[in-house]
Amino acid sequence: MDPYSIFSDIIAGRAPASRVYEDEDVLAFMDIRPMTPGHLLVVPKKPARDLAELDPVLGGKLFQVGQRLAAALRDSEVACDGVNFFLADGVTAGQEVFHVHLHVIPRTPGDGFGLRGRPRTPPRADLDYLAGSIRGALQRGR
Amino acid sequence: MDPYSIFSDIIAGRAPASRVYEDEDVLAFMDIRPMTPGHLLVVPKKPARDLAELDPVLGGKLFQVGQRLAAALRDSEVACDGVNFFLADGVTAGQEVFHVHLHVIPRTPGDGFGLRGRPRTPPRADLDYLAGSIRGALQRGR
Repeated sequence: MDPYSIFSDIIAGRAPASRVYEDEDVLAFMDIRPMTPGHLLVVPKKPARDLAELDPVLGGKLFQVGQRLAAALRDSEVACDGVNFFLADGVTAGQEVFHVHLHVIPRTPGDGFGLRGRPRTPPRADLDYLAGSIRGALQRGR
Repeated sequence: MDPYSIFSDIIAGRAPASRVYEDEDVLAFMDIRPMTPGHLLVVPKKPARDLAELDPVLGGKLFQVGQRLAAALRDSEVACDGVNFFLADGVTAGQEVFHVHLHVIPRTPGDGFGLRGRPRTPPRADLDYLAGSIRGALQRGR
């Protein structure tokens, strides 16, 4: 698998980006196609195509940097009063760049962003059945 | 602030839940209003209303458990081929239960789930301006 993506060029400084945060493991910068003003991406510097390839230590760091950015966005001129985290793992989930990235999306009332789809209310027996199947898969994955 | 929520009762075993994963810090269980079949919630056992209250160590664990669940969902009878992470921080972001929870949402083609809203393409100068403001807020937040 070729781990190349545009994010590799951004991390290396070969492509432009409006950088917000950087440490030895993680970089955060402005999404060039923001869903709302201030929309950020947090990426591991070491390429990982998807959650399965991503070192869990770096996964944890993405979330922790997201927490700090959520506070900073509220305190900046973005002046949001809510934040969404979003991550797409796989083409079917909407992933377009194959370098893991956590979206940090500032929210203000009436900004038009949100989730599409309608929740269902399945019977408890159906939930229990799938829960059992997922527990089995977790056991096998150890 | 009252940290009570229905999740406290689930964690304590006083309310029913279809549990999938548990360790000393984190619990994962089926969302009773799934956006797609197999939709899971990952919560810290120690109550935290929002990202600002959440110990970053626990935040990192939420993501890491999400990574394991993303693999298990694919390998279970849910048989998804993609996964979304979603988190709502604050009423304006759609948060309804005030105990931090990471949504892990299995995806299959044509499932009808996704994001609502339209991305813009602001000029680089606008991105750079907001990036500077967010960097300033990060500095102040240290």
